[in-house]
Amino acid sequence: MASQRRVAVVAPGNVYVGPSLARVMAAKGHDLVLGNAPAELVAELQAAGSAVVSVDHTEDLAVDGAAERLVTAALDHFGRLDAAAMFSGQIATGRFMNSSVDDLHLVTRGCIEAPYRFMKAVIPPMIQDGGGQVLVITSASAARPTPGAPLYSAARAGANHLVRNVADEVARHRVQVNAVGTNFMDFPEFLAASGATDPAVRAKVEAQVPMKRLGTMEEFAAFCLAFLDGSSRFTTGQFVAYAGGWA
Amino acid sequence: MASQRRVAVVAPGNVYVGPSLARVMAAKGHDLVLGNAPAELVAELQAAGSAVVSVDHTEDLAVDGAAERLVTAALDHFGRLDAAAMFSGQIATGRFMNSSVDDLHLVTRGCIEAPYRFMKAVIPPMIQDGGGQVLVITSASAARPTPGAPLYSAARAGANHLVRNVADEVARHRVQVNAVGTNFMDFPEFLAASGATDPAVRAKVEAQVPMKRLGTMEEFAAFCLAFLDGSSRFTTGQFVAYAGGWA
Amino acid sequence: MASQRRVAVVAPGNVYVGPSLARVMAAKGHDLVLGNAPAELVAELQAAGSAVVSVDHTEDLAVDGAAERLVTAALDHFGRLDAAAMFSGQIATGRFMNSSVDDLHLVTRGCIEAPYRFMKAVIPPMIQDGGGQVLVITSASAARPTPGAPLYSAARAGANHLVRNVADEVARHRVQVNAVGTNFMDFPEFLAASGATDPAVRAKVEAQVPMKRLGTMEEFAAFCLAFLDGSSRFTTGQFVAYAGGWA
Amino acid sequence: MASQRRVAVVAPGNVYVGPSLARVMAAKGHDLVLGNAPAELVAELQAAGSAVVSVDHTEDLAVDGAAERLVTAALDHFGRLDAAAMFSGQIATGRFMNSSVDDLHLVTRGCIEAPYRFMKAVIPPMIQDGGGQVLVITSASAARPTPGAPLYSAARAGANHLVRNVADEVARHRVQVNAVGTNFMDFPEFLAASGATDPAVRAKVEAQVPMKRLGTMEEFAAFCLAFLDGSSRFTTGQFVAYAGGWA
Repeated sequence: MASQRRVAVVAPGNVYVGPSLARVMAAKGHDLVLGNAPAELVAELQAAGSAVVSVDHTEDLAVDGAAERLVTAALDHFGRLDAAAMFSGQIATGRFMNSSVDDLHLVTRGCIEAPYRFMKAVIPPMIQDGGGQVLVITSASAARPTPGAPLYSAARAGANHLVRNVADEVARHRVQVNAVGTNFMDFPEFLAASGATDPAVRAKVEAQVPMKRLGTMEEFAAFCLAFLDGSSRFTTGQFVAYAGGWA
Repeated sequence: MASQRRVAVVAPGNVYVGPSLARVMAAKGHDLVLGNAPAELVAELQAAGSAVVSVDHTEDLAVDGAAERLVTAALDHFGRLDAAAMFSGQIATGRFMNSSVDDLHLVTRGCIEAPYRFMKAVIPPMIQDGGGQVLVITSASAARPTPGAPLYSAARAGANHLVRNVADEVARHRVQVNAVGTNFMDFPEFLAASGATDPAVRAKVEAQVPMKRLGTMEEFAAFCLAFLDGSSRFTTGQFVAYAGGWA
Repeated sequence: MASQRRVAVVAPGNVYVGPSLARVMAAKGHDLVLGNAPAELVAELQAAGSAVVSVDHTEDLAVDGAAERLVTAALDHFGRLDAAAMFSGQIATGRFMNSSVDDLHLVTRGCIEAPYRFMKAVIPPMIQDGGGQVLVITSASAARPTPGAPLYSAARAGANHLVRNVADEVARHRVQVNAVGTNFMDFPEFLAASGATDPAVRAKVEAQVPMKRLGTMEEFAAFCLAFLDGSSRFTTGQFVAYAGGWA
Repeated sequence: MASQRRVAVVAPGNVYVGPSLARVMAAKGHDLVLGNAPAELVAELQAAGSAVVSVDHTEDLAVDGAAERLVTAALDHFGRLDAAAMFSGQIATGRFMNSSVDDLHLVTRGCIEAPYRFMKAVIPPMIQDGGGQVLVITSASAARPTPGAPLYSAARAGANHLVRNVADEVARHRVQVNAVGTNFMDFPEFLAASGATDPAVRAKVEAQVPMKRLGTMEEFAAFCLAFLDGSSRFTTGQFVAYAGGWA
């Protein structure tokens, strides 16, 4: 029997915006299926009143079956799936002229194939149930020339257009599919990759952001709610950059 | 002395999304300055715990001084201004080939000059206070060819680009400026203009919307919160269409 | 009786790309109606084999009747109108926060109303004749945030969207309507406005251009041909930036 | 020793716009390296005064080395490479919900990897020589939701953004990189795929095009000249749809 509460998939649940998004979705009354969630996060969310299932080995959503296992967990445990958010994509940096076909394969797999597989998995039960909300987290680099990561940025643009096309196809089923894309966010992998673990470097990185700071995962998760928490069901096929004015 | 609570301007407060937006902003803990708010709405919001000021004769935000009076009210009554949302714009429908220069003046005044004046009025105190959130409600017609309203749609596109430019200019002051644009919303003026007060016509209008329904003011107001309620401060210069997948 | 040769309007004919565009259109076999063309240019074009009419007092295409007089000249002298190109728009520079409503009126008049009036005038005879080509020259600033000219840039974006809407409306009549927008072009007004009459300043200006130089009127005119000379009749509603990679 | 005449690569030279583009480039004074050109086309172009080299087994530009062999032929025979145009991409049609990962791999390989490899091959000699012109022919479906080919359309959008990024990177070397994308063109593969070999079906297909006809290869080739023939060297990173107003 289906739960009375809304149910959301958030994957991955252990890195980037996953934990913050799980927290705000829980606070909005969702039960959760999380990809690879740490035990402490699961316990915290359960203490806050949400039923939570973590599905292991879903860190790579381009792997065949990974997204399906998240969906199966939602249907098996809760009998429904109302909202689903995903993030994926390994970055390949450096100039186009110095890049390789392997770099291209890496970014198309992570940035296009993973969202493709995720959407293929989460949308059918939503169509079945008469609606749902999907949010694909891509990159603000899809929206402007990005000298430092030209292949990655291109793959992200492809994913955004895929989201738009999928949204167009499933709109009549009242399934919303949107994308948001970030840059200059304050999380360990960005700090390490940009060198901003060093305060002097961080200051230089922040100076490149029109808003002169990095974004926090908490505020980004709060923004994602508008596309996920069921309060607003009439926009689809959109892309929004979340990057301090950079894009 | 400045209020401890966040303060928002919503104008107009009597039509379109104004009342719904005022309600959700109140629910999120804002005191409010509303343009032309009905007494019943003011009473309802006060009963819900918000301090509310209504400023009369602000129905036309293209009139010199109208937006300034809203700002003055916010500063006089509350000593601060955290968020400001506006909507304006009289539509001119029909084919370009049948249009007149008067139509063009009508839409540039309502769709470009009114947002221009509003932004000029609300942003300075935000810069002064180190930040703020501005939301300009335009139209989804800015984002695609719009056969029924070519001049209106063009003026809306101009307004969206103005928002983007203003956002770029004030980002370093941590003032966010974004735009959302609707179409196919369920409100009296749209129903009257489209003939959808007649259920048979409404069915035809809904059939044109990818999501096969009209949007409600409540869900649109909920969406606007992401740009206004202070929970998320790192996106600016964006435009989002809110139109059931039409744009 | 209608001319056997193609006939084009180019206005203005005395500044910016006007003379260069007149030359390449003449070289492609067009007879010409030019706005305010200098006598030497008329003589040069006639010597090259084109019939040429210059229409005085058309320097401001936002003036009621100016574009109509160009069209009347084409029909009176040549009995046909195959192509029409226009440029207009006085720039207003400086920050949004320092701008005035007068600046806004200036740019909407020059950048939106002038193209509006021009398209209203040139398109009807094209519909009548079963086709035609219109090119509206706007600005690359319409395609990206433009800190130095936020109102101008916004008005240009409005014009581009108007072009797109008009194109959509008249496509079934096989009238093409496109826009191209420049920046960083080498012409006296830009050099004066940017200070690039001074070689040291010019070097700094050129350094801002991804292609590290200014564009010439000759090459820009050559580019415009693709939208005007009748060799290619299947693209419409497009905008192309011509700005050395800046937009 | 390098040729005095401009040299262009056009690949493939045997299908779609290849032969028409070769003809107009020859007419503009280019010597040519063509992919898989038919002997009759080579003879025709030689009779028209161009030196022509055809390189076999270049029909699939996603194959490692194919684009490099075209470049080698240009340098070996002519000692220079001024312009290079390519087209690639197998379409995958049908709904997203009915698609497979194999479809996705097909379109990313044909629509992203092939242009990637082509640009990697043709740009270095252009940088070496201080400039050049690259045109990547993609699809108008990159510019709007495309219900019949959602994966293909997404891959095309990725390619367009890759072009934009590559253009940005090499602009300082005065290498231009642009994209044009078609739809509704009159060529055997489109007629067969759409059923428009049947006049009744063709009429229905044409009715979907705003301009109410299909585009010809001759006029499309003429349009491409603006980005390839050396007459105009100051625009880069652009995408133009060539689709009768459909996008």
